[in-house]
Formats: sequence, structure tokens, C-alpha cells
Amino acid sequence: MRWNEIKNEPCSIARTLSVIGDRWTMLILRNAFMGVRRFDDFQQQLDVTRHLLTDRLNLLVENDIFEKKPYQTQPTRYEYRLTPKGKELYPILMTMVQWGDKWMADEDGVPLEYFDKVSGEKLSPVLVDQNSGQPIDLHQVQVKPGKGLIKALKVPEFRERWGALIKKRT
Amino acid sequence: MRWNEIKNEPCSIARTLSVIGDRWTMLILRNAFMGVRRFDDFQQQLDVTRHLLTDRLNLLVENDIFEKKPYQTQPTRYEYRLTPKGKELYPILMTMVQWGDKWMADEDGVPLEYFDKVSGEKLSPVLVDQNSGQPIDLHQVQVKPGKGLIKALKVPEFRERWGALIKKRT
Repeated sequence: MRWNEIKNEPCSIARTLSVIGDRWTMLILRNAFMGVRRFDDFQQQLDVTRHLLTDRLNLLVENDIFEKKPYQTQPTRYEYRLTPKGKELYPILMTMVQWGDKWMADEDGVPLEYFDKVSGEKLSPVLVDQNSGQPIDLHQVQVKPGKGLIKALKVPEFRERWGALIKKRT
Repeated sequence: MRWNEIKNEPCSIARTLSVIGDRWTMLILRNAFMGVRRFDDFQQQLDVTRHLLTDRLNLLVENDIFEKKPYQTQPTRYEYRLTPKGKELYPILMTMVQWGDKWMADEDGVPLEYFDKVSGEKLSPVLVDQNSGQPIDLHQVQVKPGKGLIKALKVPEFRERWGALIKKRT
């Protein structure tokens, strides 16, 4: 399988990775969530080439994660603002923070702390089921093929790679 | 900044990406969470070279995400099992599924559906604050430097890249 085919996979993780699966893309998004909007700021903070940054920003605009808006004329300069689709990537970054804080922090302690702006209380994000309020427990999750996969399994290439996996798990 | 320096950044997202930031790594983990443990199964399902797969599996073992255990002797063959550290990556994958289901599904519908094994109810994962029970709202999150970042800011390289960003956001 080639990486540029990944967005056609019958899998929401693969499709998400087709947008954010590039390593630098995730760091650009991290800074965007910290309030960064301008090319030069991204470049200075990430210390990457203009070429790499231009490429990744363009992809994020194409994928409707950023909206490019002029903030100055003569010469026109643009800033990159998170769209609603982009803003909804936040839980992915927050769950990465959680894991990194727990498993990758060194003896110096965690890099950032997160608080509720209104209450001032420290935040402890946890993934729960909206209906039961209970934390999602890996061992209690059952997976069933949805319509998208059922249709994809009619295609030989997908059936070959996904058939046994789905049978095993469901 | 070079990618192999990423694990030294005073940032839990960067450090997490130093382990799982490779695109194929995420797909290997996806299949591991679906119950896959053996080299040949991973290879057949991902359709990647043995070389690439060996490399990524070794990195995951080195980073204590997988534990390599013999399942057969003469010849000895190993399987790759998620460690506790590895299992705690689950919320990252689940938040990716959520986003992909919402923003990347085509007209065929979502690929997989997730249910609670005991109640049989469909799961709707949402990231909430453990104390208040409220969904984490990007616009209500305040960030403050933790001990790890405060110490890192004494290093000129980090101060140069992180100083303005932190000042802006906090």
C-alpha cells in the first residue's frame, strides 16, 4: 500500500492520517492551537525550511483545516486560521498531551499545564462515553463493520487485506 | 529542527510524536488494537515491505509500546503485544476515529461502529474534564508553563523558539 492511497482506505484512522499523518503537520497544528496564525511565526518556532512549511500549510488549506485570510494589503499577507473542521482536531492533540505527560515527561516535570479559564481549576481530560459517562475501556469495546466497510469488502483488494482482520475482531 | 531531536522538545505532543509520529506506526497500532500480534498478519494487512515493518516494530519494542514474546519454538517465532504504555494510546486512536467518522466519511457511511460489549449500546466517545464532567472546550482552556518548560526556557535554543509563543498564549 502506498501512502497516497491511504485516504481511500475503509478506515477512519487511515483517512484522518491522510490529513494529519505528517509529523510536521501535527506541530504546525499544535502551534495553531496556541494562537499562531502567521507564516513567519510558524517558521521561527518550528525552525523548518520555508519550502517545507509552505507545502504543509497548503495541504492544510486544501483539506479545509486552515482558512487563508489576508491580514494586510500592499503587499498582501495572509494568515492561517483554524476552520471548524480544524478546531475539532483538538481532542486528538489533547489526548497526545495526556499520554506524553504521563509516559514521556522527564524529571523536570510536565511542559505545560491546562486550566479552565472560568473556574481556574486544573483540567484532567478523559475520554468517556457520552451516554454512560464512563471512561472508554479498550477491553469493553466491541467493533462491528459499518456500511462503509461492508461495501468496501466487495472490492477484492480491500477484502484481501481487511477480511481476516474484521472476522477476527468482531 | 531535525526530526530526531523532537523527543528533546519541552512539549508532550512532540515527545508523543517521537514515538507514534510515523504514519505507518499508527496503522500498525490500529491493527494491534484490533487484536493483531504477528508479523505476517501485520504485513499482509498493511501490504508493506518486511523491511519497513521490521523497522517500525523494533522501534515500538524499544519504546516499550510492544512487548515481544515467543509463541512458538523450533523455530522460535515472536508476537508483539501491547504493553500498558501501549494500551494507553487507545484514546488517541479513538479521537482520530471520531474525527475521521465525522469529517472524512464518504457517502457509503462510516467504516466501523463501536459498541459497549456489556450493554450493547453504541459508544459516543467524548473528551471531558474528569472533575467537572464537561466536554473540553478549546476556547475555555488556559495554558500555563509547567516546571518542565520553565526549566527548558533557560536554554537559549528553546527560549528562542518557545519564548514568544508562551508569552502570547498564557
